[in-house]
Amino acid sequence: MTGTEFARLSLNTKTTNSWTLREAVEGAAAAGLPAVGLWRDRVAEAGVAESAKILADNGIRVSSLCRGGFLTGFDDALDDNRRAIEEAAALGAPELVMVVGGIPHRDLPGARARVADRIGALAPHAAACGVRLALEPLHPMYCADRAVISTLSQALALAEPHPADVVGVVVDTFHVWWDPELPQQIAEAGRQSRISSYQICDWLVPMAADPLMSRGMMGDGVIDFASVTAMVSAAGYHGDVEVEIFNADVWSADPRGVVETMKQRYRELVLPGLSA
Amino acid sequence: MTGTEFARLSLNTKTTNSWTLREAVEGAAAAGLPAVGLWRDRVAEAGVAESAKILADNGIRVSSLCRGGFLTGFDDALDDNRRAIEEAAALGAPELVMVVGGIPHRDLPGARARVADRIGALAPHAAACGVRLALEPLHPMYCADRAVISTLSQALALAEPHPADVVGVVVDTFHVWWDPELPQQIAEAGRQSRISSYQICDWLVPMAADPLMSRGMMGDGVIDFASVTAMVSAAGYHGDVEVEIFNADVWSADPRGVVETMKQRYRELVLPGLSA
Repeated sequence: MTGTEFARLSLNTKTTNSWTLREAVEGAAAAGLPAVGLWRDRVAEAGVAESAKILADNGIRVSSLCRGGFLTGFDDALDDNRRAIEEAAALGAPELVMVVGGIPHRDLPGARARVADRIGALAPHAAACGVRLALEPLHPMYCADRAVISTLSQALALAEPHPADVVGVVVDTFHVWWDPELPQQIAEAGRQSRISSYQICDWLVPMAADPLMSRGMMGDGVIDFASVTAMVSAAGYHGDVEVEIFNADVWSADPRGVVETMKQRYRELVLPGLSA
Repeated sequence: MTGTEFARLSLNTKTTNSWTLREAVEGAAAAGLPAVGLWRDRVAEAGVAESAKILADNGIRVSSLCRGGFLTGFDDALDDNRRAIEEAAALGAPELVMVVGGIPHRDLPGARARVADRIGALAPHAAACGVRLALEPLHPMYCADRAVISTLSQALALAEPHPADVVGVVVDTFHVWWDPELPQQIAEAGRQSRISSYQICDWLVPMAADPLMSRGMMGDGVIDFASVTAMVSAAGYHGDVEVEIFNADVWSADPRGVVETMKQRYRELVLPGLSA
């Protein structure tokens, strides 16, 4: 029963990076998938209205839009984030993934304080648009240049002043698998109804020379997907499972073959956790 | 007053990687430094007895011996760790830095449990030899292949069953600077009298292609040394400050020049935190 098996599997456009938005949406539909995760670069190429039409024509929903954020600089970036919120709304994306930005000038506490302030400034617009700001803890190796949110615990603390349907958190296996507090923090995110998105890919050993390109296909690395998936399931998350892979080998392979491998690995490694 | 300024500055042999143990000890003495941190490879080349003699002849103490560990495999590695403890004792090194090992077979909880068991197995011998096992949290990017201890909080939990003078924790700026709980965890480590070693180097942006070689000279990256050093000082740590740099550019430079730069950066960036 393909329909049942893949009813929660979403193809992030980064995984098939050579595909246009239309190719990704049609490729997902052809593979029997119900959803895609979109990056704004592909949406910009196609245009927001045309992207929405392509999605509707193919009966494909959007699990999340990537990404807003980069809130830690001296330029507050709020206008661009408001546009990202509006794009998410226009695309029917319930969640806008927020990669909050790194540290200018060695001031980590200051950067974190600016994130808190600016999430507060954006939350009313997100609420008005029916889009949730999904705070993504990134692996600590990106703390300097990409995201000063490094753990689920920290993301939940930043979300705390806001309603759970306005600010949530992303659980991305690559970023959080190492966290000694992972079971407790996923459970806590579930108790607060704040799990916005469950994104998956593997942690490769050795890492790629470019740390941004070290995300691997499930099963090619060290992550125990059944275990993490069972935590997310037990926490009450019933949303899509989005596969997001940045990897030169995956990107140079035939995208149709990548989607087939993704489905197979999902069936073997992830589904057992979802049904646990 | 050079003697006062550098009274706590220790040169780790990795920082001047092209030097033999004798060259490093004599280089430290010539530069007016009181201490070195030793890696076992350099000790093995010189021999333990000869190393101890070189240290004594130059009036140089050992801040720590690197390293024991790699306790997560199915081979328990206890014999080699017992030898490392004995080497530390013979060299007068009060602290044996423990890099505990990565995860075989995707089983992170199992690997962490083996670390706890094997620290327990080693603790009596360490106590008998007067050497403290210094558990080092490594940056989470090394969790898979090098150390399943990723945070100070986790290291303190593993140390907890043991007396503070038998099992301590290492604070290494490169590994822990990103931790949202860093101030609280350093303070807690201090309250428990468990800070075994304060190791410093900077976090470079971008990272080096080999993540093991991305440790930079203080001031070349994003870490706020005055701030972290002040936390360690306020926590009651009065021991050596060991500079440990793995970096191809640093290793290919003239070691004497590296030591001079290290002293200068220490004076500018670290000393203000020590006196805070």
